[in-house]
Amino acid sequence: MLKGKQSWTFANAPAILTTGVTGGEMEGEGPLKDDFDLLYDDNYVNEDTHEKAHRKLLEDAVTIALKKGNLKKEKVQFFLAGDLINQITPTSFAARTNSIPHIGLFGACATSMEGLALAGFLTNYNGAEYVLTGTSSHKGAVEKQFRYPTDYGGQKPPTAQWTVTGAGVALVGKSVGILKPIPKLTSATIGKVVDMGLKDPFNMGGAMAPAAVDTIMTHHKDLDHGPNYYDAVITGDLGQIGNKIAYDMLQEKNFLIDRERLIDCGMLIYNKEQNVFAGGSGAACSATVLYGHILNKMKKGLYKRILFVSTGALLSPLSFQQKETIPCIAHAVAIEFA
Amino acid sequence: MLKGKQSWTFANAPAILTTGVTGGEMEGEGPLKDDFDLLYDDNYVNEDTHEKAHRKLLEDAVTIALKKGNLKKEKVQFFLAGDLINQITPTSFAARTNSIPHIGLFGACATSMEGLALAGFLTNYNGAEYVLTGTSSHKGAVEKQFRYPTDYGGQKPPTAQWTVTGAGVALVGKSVGILKPIPKLTSATIGKVVDMGLKDPFNMGGAMAPAAVDTIMTHHKDLDHGPNYYDAVITGDLGQIGNKIAYDMLQEKNFLIDRERLIDCGMLIYNKEQNVFAGGSGAACSATVLYGHILNKMKKGLYKRILFVSTGALLSPLSFQQKETIPCIAHAVAIEFA
Repeated sequence: MLKGKQSWTFANAPAILTTGVTGGEMEGEGPLKDDFDLLYDDNYVNEDTHEKAHRKLLEDAVTIALKKGNLKKEKVQFFLAGDLINQITPTSFAARTNSIPHIGLFGACATSMEGLALAGFLTNYNGAEYVLTGTSSHKGAVEKQFRYPTDYGGQKPPTAQWTVTGAGVALVGKSVGILKPIPKLTSATIGKVVDMGLKDPFNMGGAMAPAAVDTIMTHHKDLDHGPNYYDAVITGDLGQIGNKIAYDMLQEKNFLIDRERLIDCGMLIYNKEQNVFAGGSGAACSATVLYGHILNKMKKGLYKRILFVSTGALLSPLSFQQKETIPCIAHAVAIEFA
Repeated sequence: MLKGKQSWTFANAPAILTTGVTGGEMEGEGPLKDDFDLLYDDNYVNEDTHEKAHRKLLEDAVTIALKKGNLKKEKVQFFLAGDLINQITPTSFAARTNSIPHIGLFGACATSMEGLALAGFLTNYNGAEYVLTGTSSHKGAVEKQFRYPTDYGGQKPPTAQWTVTGAGVALVGKSVGILKPIPKLTSATIGKVVDMGLKDPFNMGGAMAPAAVDTIMTHHKDLDHGPNYYDAVITGDLGQIGNKIAYDMLQEKNFLIDRERLIDCGMLIYNKEQNVFAGGSGAACSATVLYGHILNKMKKGLYKRILFVSTGALLSPLSFQQKETIPCIAHAVAIEFA
């Protein structure tokens, strides 16, 4: 039910039952490689275009999540997913493959938590027994669409980020009757669009940080939590620059979260030696790191409860050409391992 | 709660409290002109690009719906909306303007009912007091993106459709305490992707008809209704050709709905003299006709209960170039005037 201005609490313990996480070449060379279920060493993923590879990574993640849950796809009522490609075709085509009734989402890189929040709400109120939710991205497809084809060899500034090639999917259902500890969804906050007037598409982390700050502060206020209630507040893909801006903004607003509690997936997924500028990005950045690495850390007891905040930049090449600034959004889901 | 395979029933009477409907030049010359709240006689809508006009039409529809409800935007918890433009920028930019926490949707021309179904679910379970949901489209922006700039003067076959310029928005909330009859949302069905292998982007009605048929039949089965339970089953933008295909398919599958009960918004919004080929289309086609014309007809007692089915073609120019067929989807919401 609604709590505060824009948050929901889930009293009936919807939970992440299983996950599926896939990645490409760079992800398999990074520090989180052991947290992926399936890694391809070629970003074409045995398909003939990057867009088709994009779709395949999502399809694989769905298949893996279902297999882990020993569940047939016919048992899943809804597939809530989206991506950043025009008309989210990789997602729609994956929804064609799996034939699960489909709710298409668009929240740019904030899509992962938009989907998980809705999946939590739907299962909490018996709108579904099982929901699959997730997102995917592909560096080649995204670069071609938003910037230049990679073959062109355009130079990038140090504020740029590296789009994750991969997909992360969660199977959400009620945790009733499951005795072992699993990641339960306890609350969620839907963000509003925040635009600080930035225009540089090579500094997304800086543009998105204020949206993350807005959602983080609103969530804590709506839920009556102090700034250090969660063991970690984990953002999706602010990268190194955006993470610093977000922390500084929170301090300025007197939201005194401990420095080490504010973590970003874009800073975790690659090594410094991988030359990824300010870090990882893309819709799959938050989804792969949460559904792989972070949940594994929770299982090991490193975090008991976290707030996961995925952040999205809602621009398009056309809006940039028409001199628009970059509207951003962040959605959050609280996850408790219990 | 879940009913059958992929439907929800709403026991707590969420309802459409008010609506806002805007349109452009052609819509103001059509037979439904009196059902629009605001009509512009120039499709630039006092903006300097068609994309910005697209955004403005949605913003106006939101403003009108709020004004009719005598409600400040701060009282609305969520704005569920989407459109067909790359990265749904007209919607995201409208969400920036109204600052209402935003859930971005992508369902092509099926977005209107995707949003209304979710708005019904959220309000039914106290996830929000008020939700705004809607969609918009703009012929100039859509033609430029999907086909050719209109200035190019490309010829079209008779199976083509004419994209509606406009926006339709509904303010959804609980109907508790409202004594006069209003349009209540009683159930909804989320569709699955259906692809019959068609490839012609100038025959969307034909491509989308099987998705509409699948959702219509599933809805009636999930809810245990006979084929003539609803006074009308109204599709979004199949047009003349798609409407005939849908009717024939339903007959073949022994779903014996009366011919006159199967209606399509794309056949209502323009006159034959307006040269719109097989009829209207675009995300705003279903939204403007339902939230204007159809609800007005319900108020006059012409229909007591309807099933409204919006249909979407989930292709992109790139997926067409990559020789993909057209995956389609349809979502349905049952509306009862009581």
